[in-house]
Amino acid sequence: MTTALISAPSTLALLSLAERYREVRDATVTLCVPLETEDYVVSSMEDVSPTKWHLAHTSWFFETFVLAPFMPSYVARHPRYAFLFNSYYVQAGERHCRAQRGLVTRPTVAEVFAYRAYVDEALLSLCVSIADDPAHPAWRVIELGLHHEQQHQELLVTDIKHVFWTNPMRPAYRGAPVESPAPVSQEWVGVSEGVYETGHAGNDFAFDNESPRHRTYVQPTQLATRLVTNAEYVQFIADGGYRQPALWLSAGWSTVQQAGWRAPLYWEQHDGAWHEFTLSGNAPVVSTAPVTHVSYFEADAFARWAGFRLPMEAEWEIAARAHPLDGRFVEHGGMHPSADSRGGMQQLFGDTWQWTQSPYVAYPGFRPSAGAIGEYNGKFMCDQWVLRGASCATPRSHARHTYRNFFPSDARWQFSGIRLAADA
Amino acid sequence: MTTALISAPSTLALLSLAERYREVRDATVTLCVPLETEDYVVSSMEDVSPTKWHLAHTSWFFETFVLAPFMPSYVARHPRYAFLFNSYYVQAGERHCRAQRGLVTRPTVAEVFAYRAYVDEALLSLCVSIADDPAHPAWRVIELGLHHEQQHQELLVTDIKHVFWTNPMRPAYRGAPVESPAPVSQEWVGVSEGVYETGHAGNDFAFDNESPRHRTYVQPTQLATRLVTNAEYVQFIADGGYRQPALWLSAGWSTVQQAGWRAPLYWEQHDGAWHEFTLSGNAPVVSTAPVTHVSYFEADAFARWAGFRLPMEAEWEIAARAHPLDGRFVEHGGMHPSADSRGGMQQLFGDTWQWTQSPYVAYPGFRPSAGAIGEYNGKFMCDQWVLRGASCATPRSHARHTYRNFFPSDARWQFSGIRLAADA
Amino acid sequence: MTTALISAPSTLALLSLAERYREVRDATVTLCVPLETEDYVVSSMEDVSPTKWHLAHTSWFFETFVLAPFMPSYVARHPRYAFLFNSYYVQAGERHCRAQRGLVTRPTVAEVFAYRAYVDEALLSLCVSIADDPAHPAWRVIELGLHHEQQHQELLVTDIKHVFWTNPMRPAYRGAPVESPAPVSQEWVGVSEGVYETGHAGNDFAFDNESPRHRTYVQPTQLATRLVTNAEYVQFIADGGYRQPALWLSAGWSTVQQAGWRAPLYWEQHDGAWHEFTLSGNAPVVSTAPVTHVSYFEADAFARWAGFRLPMEAEWEIAARAHPLDGRFVEHGGMHPSADSRGGMQQLFGDTWQWTQSPYVAYPGFRPSAGAIGEYNGKFMCDQWVLRGASCATPRSHARHTYRNFFPSDARWQFSGIRLAADA
Amino acid sequence: MTTALISAPSTLALLSLAERYREVRDATVTLCVPLETEDYVVSSMEDVSPTKWHLAHTSWFFETFVLAPFMPSYVARHPRYAFLFNSYYVQAGERHCRAQRGLVTRPTVAEVFAYRAYVDEALLSLCVSIADDPAHPAWRVIELGLHHEQQHQELLVTDIKHVFWTNPMRPAYRGAPVESPAPVSQEWVGVSEGVYETGHAGNDFAFDNESPRHRTYVQPTQLATRLVTNAEYVQFIADGGYRQPALWLSAGWSTVQQAGWRAPLYWEQHDGAWHEFTLSGNAPVVSTAPVTHVSYFEADAFARWAGFRLPMEAEWEIAARAHPLDGRFVEHGGMHPSADSRGGMQQLFGDTWQWTQSPYVAYPGFRPSAGAIGEYNGKFMCDQWVLRGASCATPRSHARHTYRNFFPSDARWQFSGIRLAADA
Repeated sequence: MTTALISAPSTLALLSLAERYREVRDATVTLCVPLETEDYVVSSMEDVSPTKWHLAHTSWFFETFVLAPFMPSYVARHPRYAFLFNSYYVQAGERHCRAQRGLVTRPTVAEVFAYRAYVDEALLSLCVSIADDPAHPAWRVIELGLHHEQQHQELLVTDIKHVFWTNPMRPAYRGAPVESPAPVSQEWVGVSEGVYETGHAGNDFAFDNESPRHRTYVQPTQLATRLVTNAEYVQFIADGGYRQPALWLSAGWSTVQQAGWRAPLYWEQHDGAWHEFTLSGNAPVVSTAPVTHVSYFEADAFARWAGFRLPMEAEWEIAARAHPLDGRFVEHGGMHPSADSRGGMQQLFGDTWQWTQSPYVAYPGFRPSAGAIGEYNGKFMCDQWVLRGASCATPRSHARHTYRNFFPSDARWQFSGIRLAADA
Repeated sequence: MTTALISAPSTLALLSLAERYREVRDATVTLCVPLETEDYVVSSMEDVSPTKWHLAHTSWFFETFVLAPFMPSYVARHPRYAFLFNSYYVQAGERHCRAQRGLVTRPTVAEVFAYRAYVDEALLSLCVSIADDPAHPAWRVIELGLHHEQQHQELLVTDIKHVFWTNPMRPAYRGAPVESPAPVSQEWVGVSEGVYETGHAGNDFAFDNESPRHRTYVQPTQLATRLVTNAEYVQFIADGGYRQPALWLSAGWSTVQQAGWRAPLYWEQHDGAWHEFTLSGNAPVVSTAPVTHVSYFEADAFARWAGFRLPMEAEWEIAARAHPLDGRFVEHGGMHPSADSRGGMQQLFGDTWQWTQSPYVAYPGFRPSAGAIGEYNGKFMCDQWVLRGASCATPRSHARHTYRNFFPSDARWQFSGIRLAADA
Repeated sequence: MTTALISAPSTLALLSLAERYREVRDATVTLCVPLETEDYVVSSMEDVSPTKWHLAHTSWFFETFVLAPFMPSYVARHPRYAFLFNSYYVQAGERHCRAQRGLVTRPTVAEVFAYRAYVDEALLSLCVSIADDPAHPAWRVIELGLHHEQQHQELLVTDIKHVFWTNPMRPAYRGAPVESPAPVSQEWVGVSEGVYETGHAGNDFAFDNESPRHRTYVQPTQLATRLVTNAEYVQFIADGGYRQPALWLSAGWSTVQQAGWRAPLYWEQHDGAWHEFTLSGNAPVVSTAPVTHVSYFEADAFARWAGFRLPMEAEWEIAARAHPLDGRFVEHGGMHPSADSRGGMQQLFGDTWQWTQSPYVAYPGFRPSAGAIGEYNGKFMCDQWVLRGASCATPRSHARHTYRNFFPSDARWQFSGIRLAADA
Repeated sequence: MTTALISAPSTLALLSLAERYREVRDATVTLCVPLETEDYVVSSMEDVSPTKWHLAHTSWFFETFVLAPFMPSYVARHPRYAFLFNSYYVQAGERHCRAQRGLVTRPTVAEVFAYRAYVDEALLSLCVSIADDPAHPAWRVIELGLHHEQQHQELLVTDIKHVFWTNPMRPAYRGAPVESPAPVSQEWVGVSEGVYETGHAGNDFAFDNESPRHRTYVQPTQLATRLVTNAEYVQFIADGGYRQPALWLSAGWSTVQQAGWRAPLYWEQHDGAWHEFTLSGNAPVVSTAPVTHVSYFEADAFARWAGFRLPMEAEWEIAARAHPLDGRFVEHGGMHPSADSRGGMQQLFGDTWQWTQSPYVAYPGFRPSAGAIGEYNGKFMCDQWVLRGASCATPRSHARHTYRNFFPSDARWQFSGIRLAADA
């Protein structure tokens, strides 16, 4: 049942630019295979974009930031697409209102696929023409576009999950749920006190927000070797976790009360037993699997209840860089986190993103890229928290030890989970 | 260009019940011919239902109110459809939230058409079995269901118009706009003072809110022989109609300011000239055509500006019943009002509904039908106004001299227009 | 305990204009006697104005519509008062936002009383100068101003009741609650079918919305001889009145659910017994007293549950005009409705206003007054219902057989109650 | 004109506990001297509490956290006061809704002063009884209560400023505005790279969020020697600062557009010249004075426009601790920031708080106090930024080098200003 839905691009770095472009672009299309035309159209909440929009927006990105500046002969596919498919790049011109993305029935799905093919043809011809010139300025923007596309692959999965859950019919995206073995018992790995360098260095691709590499002081710390499980989280619920204000941040407690939270997103209780909606449809909550679809508020409250805290991002990065970049990514095909029965530090990547208690702010000396592309990361450095690792919806070649994901305190529709930390 | 999109069912009354059922149901499907699958899914504002929902809801109506009670062997198509496709019949059980109708991608369009076919097969067999028994209680509910379906045909047209307009691509539903000849000059027709009987009587079908026939006192009145034209309405705008609070009801003036109204819905000004979105796409406003997509607030303000008033529904009915039930209905295919160059009282039916200054309340002695079907009309008798006539989106066989349409003061997405009245 | 709080102005009509002016203005001040300075300042919901604002606004009315046009030597008290104390007269200039009325601490209460004295001095001198000239145009505006002031006297009482109820301290405005005797059993009084004239005629003062007198057709009807009691309303509650959607208008049922209504405004249940907040503080609901603080939605649902309906305003007026204008008005001092143990038609005036099922619209031939004063009534003829009679907060000399009070379907903070009607 | 409104309590530390209690409590009352009774009642936005509430809440704090646990004979003044005057201490029981604080007219101002006197009498007698026992657990809670009271003194000033500004009459709290001399030119002071200890240490009072003292790594940095002036900020406005999205955080740009910001709070432009509302009433913006009432969003955008950044809190603290704790505090009486003509590092305290680019989160190893008092600071560590220094509304004895003030990104009603920083 865990035959990979997507072929593993493990050797991506060895491919030519054109091959990599084709591989990443194809992976997006592969994710759409289980969808009906109707599924591409709607947005079930403001955070969720229609699949059709993801498909078009990623193409618009290449059209706007690669083809327009670097391929003089290129003619934009349609004069209104720039308006419809720009997300938030103010410097790239007027945009459609995000709240209305799910109301746009045309271009149709077929027209959007034709738009992709049109962009791909031009882009691939550009790739060929600059293949021997890695210093060509288009290279790094194409690279960025591919990583951008991979981010939208993850969003496409989490968004369609929300769309399907919103539907009282509760359709499934894939087959039977993956199994989760018994987890190992939780142990602790220490990070010793000292001045460390963290952040991205070198010539490989990284987003601008991972730089510059810089020094930071870390207190003596311990990190849990595995993610918090559903069984542990059910204990928190059973102990009145959602009813004790003293466990929560003030804004978290307001959210619990106003939104009526009493469990992670997608959970419901039937006859005393917890069930959750997965990409394989409704299923009993598997006690051995990592808890997911919890907000920062819930991760923080759980940690407080458990007598621990969440890691800081530097602690996480220092502990993680001793370990290889493996895990159950989107290519695994399960599309849901599960336990890992191997001992030692595990689940750093794949399964679920891990909330840290580090606010998402600039590293010392951070400089965003010039122009509209500089709007990619920097302008969101406010009222969000860093998540580290990667999830079961992340493409493997998209993950990095220095990767900084970020979401606001109440976001729950991503595959976000909990790794505990403790003062040593 | 005005070849009828739908064949005229002028002899509907002569057909067998089964033939009428098939004719009305087919007309709904015919209206969907210009649509792409994606167009069926979305709801562009809370008043607007997805086409897919209209198709399923009308089938649910027959399933629930005809097949369930009158055909013991009938098995509901799907256990969740009653939840998804009940509109507002509280006594018929729990319902999906109206605001979320546009978020439901499954059942797909194809599945909804299969649902229709499934219901049709059962219903037609019931029609045959009761063909010789016009006293069978299913007859009148089937009749009601057909008129209900026709109401949704009109909504399907006005809703898809709103969906298309919401889309920055502004797709068109049909071919080039219909032409509008020069209108005749406006004259007045008198209604003399006295006690009249109005409302429905007899055995022909009518909604419960058209009954009972009852006496009412009418003051001496004059009604305009034609609808207000775009040219006249443009004068109102040019004279500062939308900027003079003294012309407006208090709630109307608030709406004008909060919503930023400065013209009818679908109008925009380019280089000083007014354009409007029609089912044939964007087009210049045709000065000779009747103004449409105005709210009660606007109709009332226009009438005050012009020195007149809107008719009361009894006045309209008394004047109208001297005239035959003809006009440009949905079967005409133009899907937009146009002028009529014939003299005398005209445009009573077709073209646009006509706002009256009669609040939508019960006729003296009104009794709603028993059971859930009694929720059809009576429970909406609050804060709405009666409109009379019919529009270019109304099926011809759906119109009646006694028909009472109703919408709130700020509704603009129907084909609603203005006929003036004056105290004699 | 029912010693009158305010001396009864029963001979008001015999007084000179100046004497009447002084009497009405003094009555407003008398109503403020129980208040602390702090009580004058706040607005507990958007419908409620601060006492201070009522005191200033009524003075502004005389300043703007009488002194400014008719007393050339008059100098406005303060250049900002017109902005602060204009309510909704668009033609009288810019106004302060209604929602912010309760945020204005200056002018202080003392300054507002000084403003009143300043206006009174000028106005009384004008009264004297035109005393012998009843045709002087200021006469009818002063008259209007006095009736306007009386409307605000009633609002002052119902508004301060809401302010006190909003306060968890639940202060009382007056002494112990009035007693309510046993009510007589309910009987019916008939109105026979026919064409009647209703509305105001003659030279006595009436608001413009009571005119013109006009013919109307009335069906054979019966009206209850007394108001619905709390005991009867408690039965409605106990019978699940607030839980049966079939009893309610659609908008009413939405309101019940969204606002969580399960009893009239100001009621709460303690240990199974109903209590209500009155101007004498919290007290047990008195079963014999008329129910009050119900909305149109509740009055309509109660009538449907009881198998009857609400009267139409013409029916009420025809039945009422056979009876004198007496009742327990604000001068009675009880400030709460109570039963009447006398037989026959009773409680037409005083105790509670009576919801009718007549929408508040213009009488045939209605013409609002010219200028800003024409904004008094006409522009509110939309989405409201007529109430007839008067309440325990209405000044006796303010009531009339033809008086048309009006509020929206969900308004509950007025002393509004229920008189039943039935088709004969 | 700058004669101190409040006598300077510079020797506070030398006083007995009872003397300090009396001094701080009296200072609150002194701040109320310019107010009318009406001014105490209202809340002009949700962040603003009524003066009356500040007076009562600070007394409730002593009643609840000192008298209730440590003085067995104490009887609470009124059983409802705990409900009305608890702010956010969930563990201290049910509370009144913050949004309704401004709707409560009773207890009156006089009753609230009586409540203060009642609490003071008990508290002072407790102070005397424990005067010789500095280890008594009440000591540190009284100490906390006094610092809590001083925080509310600052809020009282900034809140009443907002209340007065909301009033179209624009009343003044004090006499003519203070003058502002010519500022010195801006210079830079360096902080060298390295590991530093920051945070509170020792036995003097500090809030829990200033602890523990801990190590942190600081990059080489420069801090401006003075605050940004109005003249500099006007240049930012004139250069289109509020119209260039590239200068703003994404959430900041949304706020600018939705709230229509085009200048600091309290500023308005008349005939091209900027004016601002001060506690001395409306006045021209003084170009030499520090800009104030700017949000984090504006401070951050200004710094980006100027080519610099905001300081981090550790940088600020390291630079500040070389300087004494002096400045223009609330005791100065000017109640508005002004320039300082002395050279060198200046304006660290008094004048305006200074936004840092440090999110308000826990120091490593932070442990909130036990019980309800632990809700003081920790539960707000989410989506806020640290401000350092103190303002012209801060009591002198309330300021500390390690003080961490915090507000959300869009808060503007505090005296918040800008000190620039630069990477060295």
